[in-house]
Amino acid sequence: MEGKMKVAVMEGIGKMGFTERPIPTPKDDEVLVKLEYVGICGSDLHYYEHGRIGDYIVEPPFVLGHEPGGTVVEVGKDVKHLKVGDRVALEPGKTCGHCEFCKTGRYNLCPDVIFFATPPVDGVFQEYVAHEADLCFKLPDNVDTMEGALIEPLAVGFHAAKQGGAAMGQTAVVTGSGCIGLVTMMALKALGVDQVYVVDIMQKRLDKAMELGATDVINGREKNTVEELMKLTDGRGVDLAIDTSGTEICVRQGMEALVKGGTQVLVGYSASGDMKLPTSLICDKEITIKSVFRYRHIYPLAIQAVAEGKVNLKGIVTNVFELDDIQNAMDRSVNEKADIVKSVVKIC
Amino acid sequence: MEGKMKVAVMEGIGKMGFTERPIPTPKDDEVLVKLEYVGICGSDLHYYEHGRIGDYIVEPPFVLGHEPGGTVVEVGKDVKHLKVGDRVALEPGKTCGHCEFCKTGRYNLCPDVIFFATPPVDGVFQEYVAHEADLCFKLPDNVDTMEGALIEPLAVGFHAAKQGGAAMGQTAVVTGSGCIGLVTMMALKALGVDQVYVVDIMQKRLDKAMELGATDVINGREKNTVEELMKLTDGRGVDLAIDTSGTEICVRQGMEALVKGGTQVLVGYSASGDMKLPTSLICDKEITIKSVFRYRHIYPLAIQAVAEGKVNLKGIVTNVFELDDIQNAMDRSVNEKADIVKSVVKIC
Amino acid sequence: MEGKMKVAVMEGIGKMGFTERPIPTPKDDEVLVKLEYVGICGSDLHYYEHGRIGDYIVEPPFVLGHEPGGTVVEVGKDVKHLKVGDRVALEPGKTCGHCEFCKTGRYNLCPDVIFFATPPVDGVFQEYVAHEADLCFKLPDNVDTMEGALIEPLAVGFHAAKQGGAAMGQTAVVTGSGCIGLVTMMALKALGVDQVYVVDIMQKRLDKAMELGATDVINGREKNTVEELMKLTDGRGVDLAIDTSGTEICVRQGMEALVKGGTQVLVGYSASGDMKLPTSLICDKEITIKSVFRYRHIYPLAIQAVAEGKVNLKGIVTNVFELDDIQNAMDRSVNEKADIVKSVVKIC
Amino acid sequence: MEGKMKVAVMEGIGKMGFTERPIPTPKDDEVLVKLEYVGICGSDLHYYEHGRIGDYIVEPPFVLGHEPGGTVVEVGKDVKHLKVGDRVALEPGKTCGHCEFCKTGRYNLCPDVIFFATPPVDGVFQEYVAHEADLCFKLPDNVDTMEGALIEPLAVGFHAAKQGGAAMGQTAVVTGSGCIGLVTMMALKALGVDQVYVVDIMQKRLDKAMELGATDVINGREKNTVEELMKLTDGRGVDLAIDTSGTEICVRQGMEALVKGGTQVLVGYSASGDMKLPTSLICDKEITIKSVFRYRHIYPLAIQAVAEGKVNLKGIVTNVFELDDIQNAMDRSVNEKADIVKSVVKIC
Repeated sequence: MEGKMKVAVMEGIGKMGFTERPIPTPKDDEVLVKLEYVGICGSDLHYYEHGRIGDYIVEPPFVLGHEPGGTVVEVGKDVKHLKVGDRVALEPGKTCGHCEFCKTGRYNLCPDVIFFATPPVDGVFQEYVAHEADLCFKLPDNVDTMEGALIEPLAVGFHAAKQGGAAMGQTAVVTGSGCIGLVTMMALKALGVDQVYVVDIMQKRLDKAMELGATDVINGREKNTVEELMKLTDGRGVDLAIDTSGTEICVRQGMEALVKGGTQVLVGYSASGDMKLPTSLICDKEITIKSVFRYRHIYPLAIQAVAEGKVNLKGIVTNVFELDDIQNAMDRSVNEKADIVKSVVKIC
Repeated sequence: MEGKMKVAVMEGIGKMGFTERPIPTPKDDEVLVKLEYVGICGSDLHYYEHGRIGDYIVEPPFVLGHEPGGTVVEVGKDVKHLKVGDRVALEPGKTCGHCEFCKTGRYNLCPDVIFFATPPVDGVFQEYVAHEADLCFKLPDNVDTMEGALIEPLAVGFHAAKQGGAAMGQTAVVTGSGCIGLVTMMALKALGVDQVYVVDIMQKRLDKAMELGATDVINGREKNTVEELMKLTDGRGVDLAIDTSGTEICVRQGMEALVKGGTQVLVGYSASGDMKLPTSLICDKEITIKSVFRYRHIYPLAIQAVAEGKVNLKGIVTNVFELDDIQNAMDRSVNEKADIVKSVVKIC
Repeated sequence: MEGKMKVAVMEGIGKMGFTERPIPTPKDDEVLVKLEYVGICGSDLHYYEHGRIGDYIVEPPFVLGHEPGGTVVEVGKDVKHLKVGDRVALEPGKTCGHCEFCKTGRYNLCPDVIFFATPPVDGVFQEYVAHEADLCFKLPDNVDTMEGALIEPLAVGFHAAKQGGAAMGQTAVVTGSGCIGLVTMMALKALGVDQVYVVDIMQKRLDKAMELGATDVINGREKNTVEELMKLTDGRGVDLAIDTSGTEICVRQGMEALVKGGTQVLVGYSASGDMKLPTSLICDKEITIKSVFRYRHIYPLAIQAVAEGKVNLKGIVTNVFELDDIQNAMDRSVNEKADIVKSVVKIC
Repeated sequence: MEGKMKVAVMEGIGKMGFTERPIPTPKDDEVLVKLEYVGICGSDLHYYEHGRIGDYIVEPPFVLGHEPGGTVVEVGKDVKHLKVGDRVALEPGKTCGHCEFCKTGRYNLCPDVIFFATPPVDGVFQEYVAHEADLCFKLPDNVDTMEGALIEPLAVGFHAAKQGGAAMGQTAVVTGSGCIGLVTMMALKALGVDQVYVVDIMQKRLDKAMELGATDVINGREKNTVEELMKLTDGRGVDLAIDTSGTEICVRQGMEALVKGGTQVLVGYSASGDMKLPTSLICDKEITIKSVFRYRHIYPLAIQAVAEGKVNLKGIVTNVFELDDIQNAMDRSVNEKADIVKSVVKIC
């Protein structure tokens, strides 16, 4: 497709702008996707506020955004499973296929991954993107492209739940009730975990959790989290604790509330990069700790969960912004964290 | 068997003594074992020095010792697999068989376990013990009762290795080269792990590790442990890190030296009960952390490993004391930690 | 509880009768249960028709029935988790707790199991039974004792699904749509398997499957099962095939319909004890075959599934008989196999 | 490298010949390997005798041979881990990297694999081959290129052992003592399986098994295999049975000799493609059946096992032929099956 497209760029810390770039041409194994919705992720906001995450440093102009949904408008000649008009969710990371991690099916650990909006690779707050067709997953009729965009965070939730060995018959607690906490709670429910409790200190987020299907919630400012969890499980403790808050206190509470032999999953990153953890308790209970880096093999499963109504994915969206309104979208998402659970940018 | 037996008791912190008690009578499902060797474990020394471990508090007179080997001298009427004269290693924990942990095969987590030398249950620094026959494992001809006694710490090493998913083709590091570090290293080798590196700061212990089969050792006082491990693995990192030192620095080094997707096993208890761990690194590498509480289903395997010469178990013993010399045995084991790797008490 | 109780006994092949026996007295770790419903299982019918299953030979008078639900009326003194008036489902097998199978959590393989209605152990077509309290699972308020009785066959279905590694995102086929086929289908759905197809040659049973939630059904008399399954899965094949029919043709069809690397679970017993299986196909596809002997660790999970409405357990019941009508119950269940999916005996 | 190379071709059933072809030019991600040894596999012999295996039909002239070892003589510009002069073992199958099997790490099931000597893809009974560098594994100094060639069958043995969950503490039986039986036995031993019994009806092959490290052997013509295995395991049965014979009787014996909950691995293909198996026994014992199609992720492990002396790989070679002698090599390998365990072709 000939022509130019609008691209929103981060021009510096706290500063968004626009530019025009040529609409990309898909390679033989790629499709060109007209983007319709792109979610705003916590990492986008972190780059926007701080200009970096660890060793990944933004060099402006840089394009943020890695949660895209859209419609196929052009198809490379080797692509077989997609056609023009198909609506798709785009998995944002292209991996090498040759390293020991790719070969053994753990492609999320590929050191040579090219991942949207991870410097120096541009993201997709823009009108079009050419992307490897294998990473574009067709949406069923009853899943729209806004949900398609949100498959990305949902994939993190499912990967967290699966890393934790989530299964029917278990009880679980999710600490942190932001976007990732909510999708993790919904993933656990979808995977058959019967009792899923959610902990946070912002009541609004807990109300959202209840609305979306949590078995019960605990406001950590008002109640003793561990005591409450013990009560809710008749003194036994939970099988699985997943932390999405990135706070030491929540991880500790999760571990204290675990049954012997239980599993703690780390999803949230702490501000300092470290946490002081109760290692003697970990050994006494023979706790397993699993961790989450992005996800693997989740998109088809997550799409199906939405299609079957097992996950109310749109329920997490509190704010939708136009692409032209991107500066405002970023600023409000940064400044109103207590009120905004999840923002999505409508591209067209 | 009628009569009295000699029992060594802890009479207070730092004070051992002797008493006489009746030789116990085995129940129908028990055997009476004449003890020949009992190992001195770090936990025995900790009770001896401090009078407690966490909530387990010694009430003197208390019998220490939970690593026993001996010979069957009497057999309960329901016992089928043992006869008088059989030499045995005794697994020290009797579990309930009914709780969710026992039912699912994780009997080491049984909350109602009765475990030698864990207050208020007496241990076995004494001449005889009556013990559930199912927990007494017959030794082959080429395994003696001193080795039988040492099966207990070896079981910890094997459980640590198995918790870590040890397998041929992997590389591993063991941090801490005391008794448990050495048996863990030997368990890893026996399970087929090709490259096992050992880290400590006491050269004498590292020399012992080399003598017993470590692939290489690193003296953390002299070298940068992580750099050395990266060199030894051609920059890839190790698959498995097992900490037996109980120190935060060693656990951190293990995690830094792990390949992405690798596993850290916690065996050693830290003095404070906590460790500050690099949780962001854990997530970035998607590290799994496993932990160890005693062991389960290990005795037959461990005995076989010794019988087949895969583990040089006697090689860890540096000091043998007579039962009458128990005060000296405890004192020297406490005071000469740098020189004494493992003490064993010869009962008769 | 003093007194006598009515007991239905098998007096010979095809002949039921009644006797009176003393109401049993529960031991310290047992409860006395007043039975309300007992399901009739295919194995009961097999003993009734043939007098034996393999090496298990009925010596009349023999009590059939091993799917009981009832109410606790007396409690042994060591029992803590149950009280008089609790309604319970009874797991029918009491295991030794000491053998290698019990110790490793695979208690269903215990060679010393005492299992209701497996000669020479009597079953429970009677008014009362004293049973180990640990094997009596309390029913929530919204699960009645007829459902409690049916937890037993449902447990087989869940064990089959779990042996097959059932998980969300998979597709599965269940061959055979009798009682066990139906509960297996419902267990798969409850465990999150999205697409569950059911195959049989009796349309009435397939209609039942559709009514209870099958994604689709195939009548093997009318359609080519493998072709249909390939169509239903867009040519990919199913991840999981579970046979409950005990017929070679169904197992073969399952294997032909499996995706490479898929899993076949054997539940149904063939009449001859053998099946001719396509071993080259098994190797070419690297198929895993799992099998099912009763179940383990399933009761709490199965009860919860019913309580949460994930499984419509009563939906499988087509016929309810009074205990006094047991002769008729057995005869009709044998003779009207095409029409009777599941019979239950109401005890009081 | 300019020039021509000698290529041995199958010109028809039972007829070998020679041709000249250009020495291939390696692509950027390939290396050119001067072949030194190529093993003769049972499948080569089957194509030679019958012209086909299942749907794979030889169209002459066709090049057989897929077990190559040699030395790198030219390196594509993107290749980093190999250099001219490196001696290598070549994994013969190049996979797509994109299908669901590749993505999930089960690349041996890739439907688009290009595998040496599987029609219509030519094999390597020739002087040179250009091959994907990622599939060429550098040999340590103490492993020669004849061993390099034999890594391929050894990989089958290791994959079989790993599919069976082989682990220290187990007992195993291998039925069939040909090349694959022997490498499987050695793989089991290398993985720590303590007791490995081998069954065959040709004493010469059993003598070879003993020579290479089997714990004991059973001649099925002379002894009752199941009774012997029961005796050897004190009546318990084996944990793992791996069949490499492709005969129904051996698979049955394996299953009869398994402990409850044990695992049977199918490696050998039966002549008819089917086997009549004891499915009731399978269910009663809750046996798991695993199967083997080639291998995955094994080459580094297998090379290391040889380097460390855990596997005496050359010990399986009974006959070495020159490339010029290929007709004789094939004919004798076909006709003297009782005497020839493994033939290797020396290329230069």
